Amino acid sequence: MKQMRIEDYGFKIGRYPKGELNKITDVYGVKVGHFTVDTGRNKTGVTVIIPCEDNPFVTKLTAASHIINGYGKSTGLMQINELGVIESPIFLTNTLNIGRVHDAAVEHMIMRCDRENLEIKSYNPIVCECNDAYLNDIAHRVVGAKEVFSAYDASVVDFTEGDVGAGKGMSCHQLKGGIGSASRIVRIEDISYTIGVLVLSNHGSLEDFLISGQPYGTKIKAIQDTACEIEKGSIIVVVATDLPLSDRQLGRLIKRVPIGLAKTGSYMGHGSGEVAIGFTTKNRVPRKGNYKIDQIQDSNLDGPFHALAEAVEEAVLNSMICSDRTEGFDGNVRESLKSYI
Amino acid sequence: MKQMRIEDYGFKIGRYPKGELNKITDVYGVKVGHFTVDTGRNKTGVTVIIPCEDNPFVTKLTAASHIINGYGKSTGLMQINELGVIESPIFLTNTLNIGRVHDAAVEHMIMRCDRENLEIKSYNPIVCECNDAYLNDIAHRVVGAKEVFSAYDASVVDFTEGDVGAGKGMSCHQLKGGIGSASRIVRIEDISYTIGVLVLSNHGSLEDFLISGQPYGTKIKAIQDTACEIEKGSIIVVVATDLPLSDRQLGRLIKRVPIGLAKTGSYMGHGSGEVAIGFTTKNRVPRKGNYKIDQIQDSNLDGPFHALAEAVEEAVLNSMICSDRTEGFDGNVRESLKSYI
Amino acid sequence: MKQMRIEDYGFKIGRYPKGELNKITDVYGVKVGHFTVDTGRNKTGVTVIIPCEDNPFVTKLTAASHIINGYGKSTGLMQINELGVIESPIFLTNTLNIGRVHDAAVEHMIMRCDRENLEIKSYNPIVCECNDAYLNDIAHRVVGAKEVFSAYDASVVDFTEGDVGAGKGMSCHQLKGGIGSASRIVRIEDISYTIGVLVLSNHGSLEDFLISGQPYGTKIKAIQDTACEIEKGSIIVVVATDLPLSDRQLGRLIKRVPIGLAKTGSYMGHGSGEVAIGFTTKNRVPRKGNYKIDQIQDSNLDGPFHALAEAVEEAVLNSMICSDRTEGFDGNVRESLKSYI
Amino acid sequence: MKQMRIEDYGFKIGRYPKGELNKITDVYGVKVGHFTVDTGRNKTGVTVIIPCEDNPFVTKLTAASHIINGYGKSTGLMQINELGVIESPIFLTNTLNIGRVHDAAVEHMIMRCDRENLEIKSYNPIVCECNDAYLNDIAHRVVGAKEVFSAYDASVVDFTEGDVGAGKGMSCHQLKGGIGSASRIVRIEDISYTIGVLVLSNHGSLEDFLISGQPYGTKIKAIQDTACEIEKGSIIVVVATDLPLSDRQLGRLIKRVPIGLAKTGSYMGHGSGEVAIGFTTKNRVPRKGNYKIDQIQDSNLDGPFHALAEAVEEAVLNSMICSDRTEGFDGNVRESLKSYI
Repeated sequence: MKQMRIEDYGFKIGRYPKGELNKITDVYGVKVGHFTVDTGRNKTGVTVIIPCEDNPFVTKLTAASHIINGYGKSTGLMQINELGVIESPIFLTNTLNIGRVHDAAVEHMIMRCDRENLEIKSYNPIVCECNDAYLNDIAHRVVGAKEVFSAYDASVVDFTEGDVGAGKGMSCHQLKGGIGSASRIVRIEDISYTIGVLVLSNHGSLEDFLISGQPYGTKIKAIQDTACEIEKGSIIVVVATDLPLSDRQLGRLIKRVPIGLAKTGSYMGHGSGEVAIGFTTKNRVPRKGNYKIDQIQDSNLDGPFHALAEAVEEAVLNSMICSDRTEGFDGNVRESLKSYI
Repeated sequence: MKQMRIEDYGFKIGRYPKGELNKITDVYGVKVGHFTVDTGRNKTGVTVIIPCEDNPFVTKLTAASHIINGYGKSTGLMQINELGVIESPIFLTNTLNIGRVHDAAVEHMIMRCDRENLEIKSYNPIVCECNDAYLNDIAHRVVGAKEVFSAYDASVVDFTEGDVGAGKGMSCHQLKGGIGSASRIVRIEDISYTIGVLVLSNHGSLEDFLISGQPYGTKIKAIQDTACEIEKGSIIVVVATDLPLSDRQLGRLIKRVPIGLAKTGSYMGHGSGEVAIGFTTKNRVPRKGNYKIDQIQDSNLDGPFHALAEAVEEAVLNSMICSDRTEGFDGNVRESLKSYI
Repeated sequence: MKQMRIEDYGFKIGRYPKGELNKITDVYGVKVGHFTVDTGRNKTGVTVIIPCEDNPFVTKLTAASHIINGYGKSTGLMQINELGVIESPIFLTNTLNIGRVHDAAVEHMIMRCDRENLEIKSYNPIVCECNDAYLNDIAHRVVGAKEVFSAYDASVVDFTEGDVGAGKGMSCHQLKGGIGSASRIVRIEDISYTIGVLVLSNHGSLEDFLISGQPYGTKIKAIQDTACEIEKGSIIVVVATDLPLSDRQLGRLIKRVPIGLAKTGSYMGHGSGEVAIGFTTKNRVPRKGNYKIDQIQDSNLDGPFHALAEAVEEAVLNSMICSDRTEGFDGNVRESLKSYI
Repeated sequence: MKQMRIEDYGFKIGRYPKGELNKITDVYGVKVGHFTVDTGRNKTGVTVIIPCEDNPFVTKLTAASHIINGYGKSTGLMQINELGVIESPIFLTNTLNIGRVHDAAVEHMIMRCDRENLEIKSYNPIVCECNDAYLNDIAHRVVGAKEVFSAYDASVVDFTEGDVGAGKGMSCHQLKGGIGSASRIVRIEDISYTIGVLVLSNHGSLEDFLISGQPYGTKIKAIQDTACEIEKGSIIVVVATDLPLSDRQLGRLIKRVPIGLAKTGSYMGHGSGEVAIGFTTKNRVPRKGNYKIDQIQDSNLDGPFHALAEAVEEAVLNSMICSDRTEGFDGNVRESLKSYI
């Protein structure tokens, strides 16, 4: 059954046209897979964003990362910025499970390279996290190789959003958060390009929550009688595009992620580690020889900046509206945004 | 006559209490002075933010700078981040006038040190700029030593906002912009502190302009029949506080400036060089000997983050609502926000 | 038996006085432990630097990290720079073993907090790596919880250097590298402080290798008839001190690490991920309430800068001279510097 | 008369082949001009590095900047890193003269654009500085438009080194410093490229000074009986190349500048603001339309890294050996390195 998304509730976020699915996978070659752990003790999981159909370790993708709030534990970012590429899928999980997912990612690529008859002596897996300890017994680290491989194998174009995969135990604006996505189309020099966004949302306080500039958070708070929590928990934003951008230009693009977050009411709290990663499928780096990177004029970035911010805003809202009410560890509960709209 | 500010029009921005004047000068010791050039050819000027009553070159103030969009020409930022202090007032002017104002700032401090019998062989003046070329013949660089000294001498606590000083020729969301200010009070460990903000606004497109989340820009556009301009022009945000913060913590604080900008509809356009500078009057660095820097817990920064974003949002609105319609160079005109509210 | 170190061969590196052991552990509270894996297939291991006697997760240590060459996979760095503290020991291992050591570090701290009756829902383990694939079958990831715990339990003040722990499989200037250490004493405002350095060396080409400015590399090359290899493999430099420094000042200090590396002939090759981490035992951050950070004048940093560079230079040489000839995976061999001096 | 350079004294720095002149101008299109002020009160000047024959404001050059020690006042750096290009010549002068040279640079480009019928409403002049206050009455700012224009007009390929232009009043390792240059040739994928370096040297203490690893500083100190001064004063390093590099790759290249500095005995003292700027003439950015940036493999950067460090080392030595003994302001004197070799 098709999930109801924020646009299905009548909210129009921004003015740029959307991609076919309005998901990150509107960028050709991108797939997303989840594995969800849903037990009494654990509400958690892993989500993998696969950036291209072939092996990214062989022909790397131009990429950039941007640390908005460094209070987080994501791995692999510094090499992205040094070399301007990603060579791995992007894995999302919970904070204390970073190590096990990292090792599973290494194992997965070693096996793949063995099959493809490639030597692998070094590898930079990108593993990002949010802290789902409110609903999940986080010290009990239940995501390992089996779960990561399953998420990988389950990857599809038309993936599920909400309380799935790494999003299972996440909270957003004191409601249920998780995985959300959106996409936008921009035209530059008469060619159309796609910008896709996927978020793992786990941030924000209820009081600040906005939809299309409207203070839904204060309204919901009046109903729920919720105590104010400090904003914490992080958000990870993955941006895919087929725009001809250099790593520097991708860096500029993803620096606009906070605009979208601010529009839904984030104040980038102290405890909210916020990280953005962007890649383009357009500029692949070959293994050998000189090569050329296609670039648009920087003055043509205004459209992409605007479109990106819109997609981030909508992806956060989708992560909430697609999530169901969840009762987790220690009796903690997060209501769904659905109940209030 | 008292200027009408955005709160006087019935808009309540955020929920933190405001300082007495609701200006950056609510932080004790801070003063602001303007010199305005208003001729047929030139609509421009200089604004100086004086951070403390005594000489900042002698007892420097803990500070940080943050480059949101580096497409700008501000001077003095790299030394702020290397040493964690400012030793000069902060001067604001137009893009091509940076050199002359820089030299005037040097001259001013040399004269002051001569009077105070201090040796000065090096000095780091902070000069920031926005591009007022729409209303000002920017190639004609009319702000020099006389104008800078006059601005300095004119500095007061209850300063004017709007189309004055460096703000004379600036545009914001395709309306008249310029100098705006606001302040907020936060309580930490039972003590009240002030966060003050001053902006030189010169960014944004009309279509995106928001007040309290409401799309005033599209409404005004319907009236004005304005062509959409790309966002460009820059914004400078100066943050003063008396909070006990380290330079690192000030850096975290001013990284939240984009939240306030996003709330009024900025997308941090390609052409919009955006720079934030923050300082605290609480932690002064003596000339000799070891010293101690007072710090709050980072986990207590959530209040300041929130308050700062509110103050930035309100300061941008004040910069617009306090500005009059201006006819400038080449027949270009910016209407005042006042006409539409 | 006491290891022969570079000073025992008559080389005097620099002019600052050394600490008692001339090791990082001259900084009070610091200990170092190794676990070495030495099989036909694997030459690798783990080394842990424990920064203080009590639990760093409770009272964190002021710290900084500096990425010289981001072609590496170290974890935990971004949070160090965001918050200015470390809350974990520093673990060193090989590149592909990052994930398993990360998870072991998490497990270790969870167990410790359980014993100390502390809640732990988030944790930032610092795990750094070099690539020992020349001597070690790196895809076979043999360092897990047992090995990490053993290294921790084996920690001492007067630790072994050379081909031990994480250093077992490392190469330096095409000779055997690994763990090396040194320390220096600086006097500031009439008080003596210690700067200690520990390196995991795995970088450099033979041709460029220098001792005290003398081209030993070219001499050895003439004897060995070695093919020139490109510089790769990384170096991790851990700096401990009891100087009253802020996180910003520690950042400035460790930015001088490349001077020491250059003195032994490093050119910071493309493939050589180079990371420095520094912490001070002097400025601990309490769990609650405002606090003060002691700082020296930045103008007093010249001595520490000089002393640090000397210690880095000597630590690299100690990592080589303390290592024995090692025959590793695939028949690859690294000779010891001892054979040529 | 040809100047005697360090190679003419029998010192061979490094192993890479040199360009024809062994100067930055071996990169085709680059020229250098000086204007020297040599009065009783003032020993100072301005040096301009012109990056290309046509107007860089029109077709900008791919570029990067790197701040080694931010205790300096250079202007224009942040825009280089945001946009990855330079659009102006690079001007060198003394610390307090930054403002006047900045304004002269603006004036010069406005005049040029007028002549070439180009609109100019914004411009990012790069003006870098060292502090020559030991030999120059720095508060007396004698370099203005006339001097800057003269330097520009005097630009040539085979330029003078030593105590000329901005180098007139500079000191290096407590001897006379100033302008120095060197170049190296690297081969990548069977094509030869040039890397050229120009330094404005004004750093270092005598005690630490090295030539080819030999402690010349301590020898000279024994003769001179010089008091030890703390290292201060800065160095600016400009790197030109015709290598096909992206801005990110140029950034990696110029991060190796400290290796060359360390080889001559720099410890990057607290007071020594150190800045590197690099550009390539190979990748020009057109005014309109998409474009392609040529890049080499990052794994081919090892040669350029090595060659760059060699050129920096030699350029520093040339800046000293080409300088004459100078008696300056207040009776201060710097001896020439020539006297001791």
